Amino acid sequence: MNRRMIIYMVGSIILLEAVVLMLPTIVALCYQELNGVFAFSLTIIIASVTGLVMRLVAKPHSRVIYAREGFIIVTFAWLFLSLLGCLPFLISQEIPNFFDAFFETVSGFTTTGASILREVESMSYGMLFWRSFTHWLGGMGVLVLIMAILPSDSGRSIHILRAEMAGPVVGKIVPKIKETARILYYLYFALTFLEFVFLLLGQMPLFDAAVHALGTAGTGGFGIHSDSIASYSPYIQWVITVFMVLFGVNFNLFYFLLLRKFKTVFGNRELWFYLGILLVASGIITYSIYPIYNNFGDSVRHSCFQVASIVSTAGFSTADFNLWPDLAKGVIFILMFLGGCAGSTAGGLKLSRVIIMLKAIQKDIRHLLHPRSVAAVKFEGKTLDDETMHGVTTYFALYIVLIAATFLLLSFEPSFDVQSNLTASVTCCNNVGPGFGLVGPMEGFGGYSWFSKLVLTFAMLFGRLEIYPVLLAFYPRTWTKK
Amino acid sequence: MNRRMIIYMVGSIILLEAVVLMLPTIVALCYQELNGVFAFSLTIIIASVTGLVMRLVAKPHSRVIYAREGFIIVTFAWLFLSLLGCLPFLISQEIPNFFDAFFETVSGFTTTGASILREVESMSYGMLFWRSFTHWLGGMGVLVLIMAILPSDSGRSIHILRAEMAGPVVGKIVPKIKETARILYYLYFALTFLEFVFLLLGQMPLFDAAVHALGTAGTGGFGIHSDSIASYSPYIQWVITVFMVLFGVNFNLFYFLLLRKFKTVFGNRELWFYLGILLVASGIITYSIYPIYNNFGDSVRHSCFQVASIVSTAGFSTADFNLWPDLAKGVIFILMFLGGCAGSTAGGLKLSRVIIMLKAIQKDIRHLLHPRSVAAVKFEGKTLDDETMHGVTTYFALYIVLIAATFLLLSFEPSFDVQSNLTASVTCCNNVGPGFGLVGPMEGFGGYSWFSKLVLTFAMLFGRLEIYPVLLAFYPRTWTKK
Repeated sequence: MNRRMIIYMVGSIILLEAVVLMLPTIVALCYQELNGVFAFSLTIIIASVTGLVMRLVAKPHSRVIYAREGFIIVTFAWLFLSLLGCLPFLISQEIPNFFDAFFETVSGFTTTGASILREVESMSYGMLFWRSFTHWLGGMGVLVLIMAILPSDSGRSIHILRAEMAGPVVGKIVPKIKETARILYYLYFALTFLEFVFLLLGQMPLFDAAVHALGTAGTGGFGIHSDSIASYSPYIQWVITVFMVLFGVNFNLFYFLLLRKFKTVFGNRELWFYLGILLVASGIITYSIYPIYNNFGDSVRHSCFQVASIVSTAGFSTADFNLWPDLAKGVIFILMFLGGCAGSTAGGLKLSRVIIMLKAIQKDIRHLLHPRSVAAVKFEGKTLDDETMHGVTTYFALYIVLIAATFLLLSFEPSFDVQSNLTASVTCCNNVGPGFGLVGPMEGFGGYSWFSKLVLTFAMLFGRLEIYPVLLAFYPRTWTKK
Repeated sequence: MNRRMIIYMVGSIILLEAVVLMLPTIVALCYQELNGVFAFSLTIIIASVTGLVMRLVAKPHSRVIYAREGFIIVTFAWLFLSLLGCLPFLISQEIPNFFDAFFETVSGFTTTGASILREVESMSYGMLFWRSFTHWLGGMGVLVLIMAILPSDSGRSIHILRAEMAGPVVGKIVPKIKETARILYYLYFALTFLEFVFLLLGQMPLFDAAVHALGTAGTGGFGIHSDSIASYSPYIQWVITVFMVLFGVNFNLFYFLLLRKFKTVFGNRELWFYLGILLVASGIITYSIYPIYNNFGDSVRHSCFQVASIVSTAGFSTADFNLWPDLAKGVIFILMFLGGCAGSTAGGLKLSRVIIMLKAIQKDIRHLLHPRSVAAVKFEGKTLDDETMHGVTTYFALYIVLIAATFLLLSFEPSFDVQSNLTASVTCCNNVGPGFGLVGPMEGFGGYSWFSKLVLTFAMLFGRLEIYPVLLAFYPRTWTKK
């Protein structure tokens, strides 16, 4: 166990946070929010000192790390980023309670978008920007941040990528990970900027366009209005819909698109599955909500927006689906589990996992029919080995156990009903954001006790890091020498 | 594909149904219910003719059958038993609608206990007896009925047992299946009779004692009062609690108990897991409902009864848990998925599967920590091979897909809310019985449309036969020659 390296790496990541915290400081400065400037500056100082001390104290003797160090680094990075990241809210007293501020920041970094705030409008510009910026950073982290700053001489950093990468990634783009990281990083930046421009073209105010582009890119979902995106124009809603869909796509595909490898892109099964689900779900929901809006255009827009928001796990909303018919709610409930494509910033189970599970089921059915035949199972042009299928179905079992455990712990909450608790568990474990009932799109998580907030905070972390890393980081045996 | 054998076997099973239908006819005679006697007699004639014709028409040239014939026989046996079994309700006009009568009969034979009736009291004695008797027959079927009447010269009937047997059974009792069948049959009969006696000792009327013993044995749940068991004495409620727990235990263990192999019995992991879940769940629910009853004894009784009822998937109730606090409801919701032990009459996922899944998860975690070590996973004293673990996790994925599909189809129902639809799906797929909301313990499934009733009917069938057989029976490729 290379403990020095763990501390050193987490320290480096905290230092990086100190650097990026300058951006919200500038925003606060622009809007002359002195309270905010003070809070951010103090946090930067604390983060810098903490990071520097960690790096100095634990200068590693050896840079070699194994999978378990990787898991611990990832988990602790997310935890420390959030612990320090919630300081501005606490110092400025805009979110005075620690559990609230921690929940909000973890929700940001895990790109969940569940909020304890009910009246977002009263927050300062600096804090609103920081909230949305955590989504963007979290999304980047999910893609490659952690990996990019890892020592490149250690091929083992792939393990962190595996723990990090959203879903099982079949195939790699560029052999060198650092190179991959850089490419994904540019793509992420470019797509965010593109959305920003499109939003500005729709006469969205500069600040609004910036935070919503950041929030969409990370598939986060923090907005700056209590009614999320509802008060913006249909054009803006459609732009966000399209970009939510885009950020739920495997980023490798964008790279292949740049390389003009159209066959690879359009031969991607997961992509078609993703688009198919979006289409079918939007269709059913449009049919379901039509009697409410009595207008085909509005029904389609609200339906597509909400479907894209839930499947990509962004969690923005243009309508309170709590008030929709139960058919629409039923479809949304199922979508909450799925998530976007592997290799995107989306949370959730990931569609490639769903496909692999369906293939495993199909294989077992075939095996029952023809016990002696051994047919290879293919996915994305490659043979799926038993180990991958087994890994995915086992992960699924663990994932359901996580949701059930979260739900059970929330049930001790006296004033929340089963539906709210269940959807709160599902939406947090899948990093979606809103649920039904008391945790609906126009409500918030503020009513929960500190204990339940802590449970949900960890549920978001578990979900975002795909369970295993967090489990291992808190598993005593991980820390003992072998 | 040995089609003749399929028809021949299903015909034999229908003939057997004609024979056992004499029992409710006698009951109807005793209570001088001429309408009932007529309905049962007519059904006996129809069943006899159908069965005989099927046997004559398709006298098999070869008695050899393979797994897929087995799956089809099991599925069609359950279907035809239910199609003919619902005739008495239709002929007597006590349940005049076909979809209602079919739902009720499938609910009986699958030992679910979900009912479309709201006012059970208005039914005649004969019909009430038949309803509960279907539970007992279904439970017996789940144990060994089908297997026992299969040609013993074909070792392949084990496949039906596999499709039939509740959960993956590790270890067999007696090498010869027919012998096993007979032993389990005696045990089943003896335990039912024992409960009957204990109920009579509590001054329960003869008829009531009979139907409740039958309903408990099959872990079914049909009662003869709208408030299920609520109006009976605490003694009777405790007797039923104990027997629900017993019928949720692997029947092999009772046999081992008779053989005085106490070590095997008390070394059974699943048994302890089962008892542990019962204890912990009862404890939490007692704590949760205490403020309602303000009496420790009542709280413990209602808590234990409901927990035993849900875990054993019987589905009787002494209290409307719909009105309980959300903590109690949350625990009950989770319990609805689990089910009893493998090799019992209980439905649900089965605890051995849950344990095997947890072991698979543990194994994957260990593998992440020590990628090179290969540690054997043990369960019930034997090594769990990867194939078993893979089979169980894949089954779990399929099981969740089944619940999700049922829920999605129910969502098209206009007047039912998400909670009712979700718990209706869970409770039917797991053969439990009552759900929350509009399908709660004191409500019924009568409000659903014919389409939703049909969906739930098939959900019960899928759940009871552990999905694969039904899936294969309706899979076109099963029917084509290889």
